[in-house]
Amino acid sequence: MAGQRVSQIIAVIGGEQADPAALRDAETLGRLLAERGCTVACGGRGGVMAAVCRGARKAGGHTIGLLPGMDRSEANRWVEFALPTGLGFARNTLVVLAGDAVIAVDGSYGTLSEIGFALVARRPVVGLGTWSFRYRGREDESVVPASSPEEAVKLALQLARERAAGKEAANDAR
Amino acid sequence: MAGQRVSQIIAVIGGEQADPAALRDAETLGRLLAERGCTVACGGRGGVMAAVCRGARKAGGHTIGLLPGMDRSEANRWVEFALPTGLGFARNTLVVLAGDAVIAVDGSYGTLSEIGFALVARRPVVGLGTWSFRYRGREDESVVPASSPEEAVKLALQLARERAAGKEAANDAR
Amino acid sequence: MAGQRVSQIIAVIGGEQADPAALRDAETLGRLLAERGCTVACGGRGGVMAAVCRGARKAGGHTIGLLPGMDRSEANRWVEFALPTGLGFARNTLVVLAGDAVIAVDGSYGTLSEIGFALVARRPVVGLGTWSFRYRGREDESVVPASSPEEAVKLALQLARERAAGKEAANDAR
Amino acid sequence: MAGQRVSQIIAVIGGEQADPAALRDAETLGRLLAERGCTVACGGRGGVMAAVCRGARKAGGHTIGLLPGMDRSEANRWVEFALPTGLGFARNTLVVLAGDAVIAVDGSYGTLSEIGFALVARRPVVGLGTWSFRYRGREDESVVPASSPEEAVKLALQLARERAAGKEAANDAR
Repeated sequence: MAGQRVSQIIAVIGGEQADPAALRDAETLGRLLAERGCTVACGGRGGVMAAVCRGARKAGGHTIGLLPGMDRSEANRWVEFALPTGLGFARNTLVVLAGDAVIAVDGSYGTLSEIGFALVARRPVVGLGTWSFRYRGREDESVVPASSPEEAVKLALQLARERAAGKEAANDAR
Repeated sequence: MAGQRVSQIIAVIGGEQADPAALRDAETLGRLLAERGCTVACGGRGGVMAAVCRGARKAGGHTIGLLPGMDRSEANRWVEFALPTGLGFARNTLVVLAGDAVIAVDGSYGTLSEIGFALVARRPVVGLGTWSFRYRGREDESVVPASSPEEAVKLALQLARERAAGKEAANDAR
Repeated sequence: MAGQRVSQIIAVIGGEQADPAALRDAETLGRLLAERGCTVACGGRGGVMAAVCRGARKAGGHTIGLLPGMDRSEANRWVEFALPTGLGFARNTLVVLAGDAVIAVDGSYGTLSEIGFALVARRPVVGLGTWSFRYRGREDESVVPASSPEEAVKLALQLARERAAGKEAANDAR
Repeated sequence: MAGQRVSQIIAVIGGEQADPAALRDAETLGRLLAERGCTVACGGRGGVMAAVCRGARKAGGHTIGLLPGMDRSEANRWVEFALPTGLGFARNTLVVLAGDAVIAVDGSYGTLSEIGFALVARRPVVGLGTWSFRYRGREDESVVPASSPEEAVKLALQLARERAAGKEAANDAR
């Protein structure tokens, strides 16, 4: 029975200003996630956030928008569950924590901040045309690159499964 | 089409330690809200929070749990959308903001804090066996009292409608 | 050497709209706390917050303002350390947590919310002309009443000492 | 009179695990900032955070630690104003907002997250042996590189001055 299950959630991070290719990718991501029964969580506003929600809702999926302000009126029209946080940009940390895995889509500084936070919070991150970064000349490889929305969704679901399995194994070992 | 509508959300606030009467009321609240098509938002843990989620989910409704920690494992089993916030007790402010109206059910200090915050954030609050308070001898009447879960739900939905209508009127007047 | 000690902090909570008596009390509180070597933490804006900072700074004390916005320009001019949080009203929880004890001064809903949060977070609260509240007809006595700023400061420092001693005892017993 | 001035604050970001060179740089940063009359804000715990506080306090400066937990006991011993936030990793956003400018010192993911957030919040960032990043092959140059603590402090103070001047100009133009 549906009422007995927690929904799997994939967080999609990306900014309000994004080029057409990123927006198309985001809409496809939304559709693919919905088709696999996943709920999409995002920042709930425009740009990449609106595109991924539109894709998910058109395919019958659930969408959660974690909004920076105190009112739901700023949500894009494809957000089903509009959650005002009143936290401003700090709400970015909530978007990341909502996901069993995170897919990063564009090149805003907010997205960079969310990638860093996801790695702190041990959420697997898949990158689809997003930031790469290095420390003292060494490239960091924590973000798993994808070359298409299809690959991004496949990788995100696989990493979310491995993360869940790792937790269960850790619990069994206690 | 369902995909085009934002869900109406009622926040139910109440603590982990609550007496049996409060728990029964909370479960009834959840059922009644679900029957009216409302989504329930709460803190996602035990006590009042588990009871209201159980009532809502058994009646086929949606439930959102805004959790204090960084992991969804602390959610009660009737939370459908488990959202870890990592904010500790400060996540109480998010529970309140999630609601078009707020129903307060018991007498924990967390609930007192949420009532105060709801009044700051201009969310209508219905009280069902909860705190009353006064300033310099004068009783405050901002919390609308209800004597049963049925009345609480009826009042909360009416206040949420009036709030939405007031906003539209304010927008029209601009 | 001063550089080796953590500063004792007393949080003073109260709103932007307050009557002249509350403002006079707040300014006296600030002066008395500074004279005892305590740092004042507050929300950093006007009303009670400005009055307590003015009293403290004029007496040579330190003041910390935890601001709701992202910029320090909203701080009152007697804030020495202006800390923008970007969290909106949720910054109220930080004001409370900053204090070894909390003194509540007026009757705004924000103050009610902070009292509730302080009791959740196990900070002792002294009330100087503030909210009282009851649950199911029983008066709650967690807020220690004071009848003057002098008494409020004396009680707050005593409760802060007892809290610190309790913690050390708890640590010794491990 | 000291009581009439808001303190200039420089945020120093860096993690708990850092190599000896980063720790030495952080301690020097703290000393140099204190000598120029700046207050240091940081995350208040170990590693880079303890080193920068130690340097600042030994030189007679003020230090503010914005702590993740609800209790001040986790602060390093060179924090003068210990502010528990209860927000977990989301407190990183507060560290950044506290600064008129930000100096990033090492290569933790938390630091990456803070750099991204600083760029969102329009705080100037100076990097001293920290992350570099690029989007679609193009190197991002928003973080101003420094090759020594002396240069980092000089750049941070200059950027903070320019930011303040830009704001005053913007205010004059209104």
